[in-house]
Amino acid sequence: MTVEAYGLPEHRRIVAASGLGLSTVPIDTQGATVSKLGDTDAVMLTPAHQFPLGVAMSPRRRTETIRWAADTAGLVIEDDYDGEFRYDRQPVGALQALAPEHVAYVGTASKSLAPGLRLAWLVLPAELTDEVVAAKARADRTNTLDQLTLAEFITSGAYDRHLRRSRHAYRRRRDRLVAALHQHAPDVRVTGVAAGLHAVVELPAGHDENHVIASAAQHDLAIETLNGYQRDDTPHGPALVVGYGTPPEHAFSSAVAKLCAAIRSAPLAPAP
Amino acid sequence: MTVEAYGLPEHRRIVAASGLGLSTVPIDTQGATVSKLGDTDAVMLTPAHQFPLGVAMSPRRRTETIRWAADTAGLVIEDDYDGEFRYDRQPVGALQALAPEHVAYVGTASKSLAPGLRLAWLVLPAELTDEVVAAKARADRTNTLDQLTLAEFITSGAYDRHLRRSRHAYRRRRDRLVAALHQHAPDVRVTGVAAGLHAVVELPAGHDENHVIASAAQHDLAIETLNGYQRDDTPHGPALVVGYGTPPEHAFSSAVAKLCAAIRSAPLAPAP
Repeated sequence: MTVEAYGLPEHRRIVAASGLGLSTVPIDTQGATVSKLGDTDAVMLTPAHQFPLGVAMSPRRRTETIRWAADTAGLVIEDDYDGEFRYDRQPVGALQALAPEHVAYVGTASKSLAPGLRLAWLVLPAELTDEVVAAKARADRTNTLDQLTLAEFITSGAYDRHLRRSRHAYRRRRDRLVAALHQHAPDVRVTGVAAGLHAVVELPAGHDENHVIASAAQHDLAIETLNGYQRDDTPHGPALVVGYGTPPEHAFSSAVAKLCAAIRSAPLAPAP
Repeated sequence: MTVEAYGLPEHRRIVAASGLGLSTVPIDTQGATVSKLGDTDAVMLTPAHQFPLGVAMSPRRRTETIRWAADTAGLVIEDDYDGEFRYDRQPVGALQALAPEHVAYVGTASKSLAPGLRLAWLVLPAELTDEVVAAKARADRTNTLDQLTLAEFITSGAYDRHLRRSRHAYRRRRDRLVAALHQHAPDVRVTGVAAGLHAVVELPAGHDENHVIASAAQHDLAIETLNGYQRDDTPHGPALVVGYGTPPEHAFSSAVAKLCAAIRSAPLAPAP
């Protein structure tokens, strides 16, 4: 099982608990470097918006991914965790649509509604469906009322309206965050913000990201270091992962101000 | 892993999927015959209301169960699936309270609210808590909103009121079912109805339970044979397991009438 070199720490635990070996594939500006996949049965990717780096997989890499799956009979798990939120570019089609028998597509209501709902969906290669349904039933079933409510929400058109409203609101938040950082912390570089609900904030070389985290935490602001999501040991500069979807609307401006203050307060890191 | 000689077929699949061996322990009029447990690490029991036979475990057997667990360091899984619904007898205390370090207690809102909610709770020996929490997180988490709603329902007192109303309503259904069978199918014997939401209906020897099931199904009535819940091969007479909690209130009388008609229509079984 291969995962991207950056991603949720939880995935590593899930893979380990299932007894599979874990390898990583590097990410560059075109997305996962599929040519470096090597000998693996399955790869989990976030092609539409790499988590957390934020890059979208290039058309060429998408083609390479599908070719790898077809040539090796490998499985691609396409984690489309925030597919509803695209701002500055056209939505990218799912890999799954290009090769339905090689790609397991994963969608979720965690970003569009709430993570606590525990509602998600899979589009599976036909030959996997029975096995996955049985495994899910053994693990636990999902609240039937919640499923029926979501189905009604979708078929009534209200979910689409909710997404349009949310997309607009999150895009505004993204713009406010980027503008505030530009003004109050002009030395940082903000990346990965063409989509989704989080930004990668690269600090100037030598700055201590852990100090920023600690300073923000003192003001009740939870942010993460990019390190916390790294799964290989390729060096990278100091950087933060900032989720901007969480604060309630009335607290958003103050949260952004606290973030800028925490960044400005960070001293240079001690020399390694 | 040992389970009772009667129970949900699903348990066998769950145990098999986890790679454990499965043995069964017979049930008599005092509940599971714990003295026959033999060499096993864990036993799953329904002491308050054996599913589906309906017997309550006698005080003596309860003591034997706790002694077995203490002597062998074995684990008792106490499945209290319908503990809220007792009619003709005092509530029985949980085994868990007698030996909290040897008993994992399982409660659920499946009977008191709805199975589709997927809300249940465990009271675990302290040494198992971390491991079970981690396993549950890997399998899937439970809807946070549902958990908070149930917590509010309980602390407000509304859940208790709901249980009192439901207990009264289900007891009335139980009485109506028993009275109707007494009048319209006087040859059957109804057992296990001091608690819960189902009855075991023993047919006269030689009657064909499968015919009753098929005849009921023709009238959109889903009932089960006792055979469907049997996990060993001890012979028993023809019998049905009838859940009386499912039909909506306006359809209950007609469902009972259909059941009586299906029983009356059953011919003697072909000689084996």
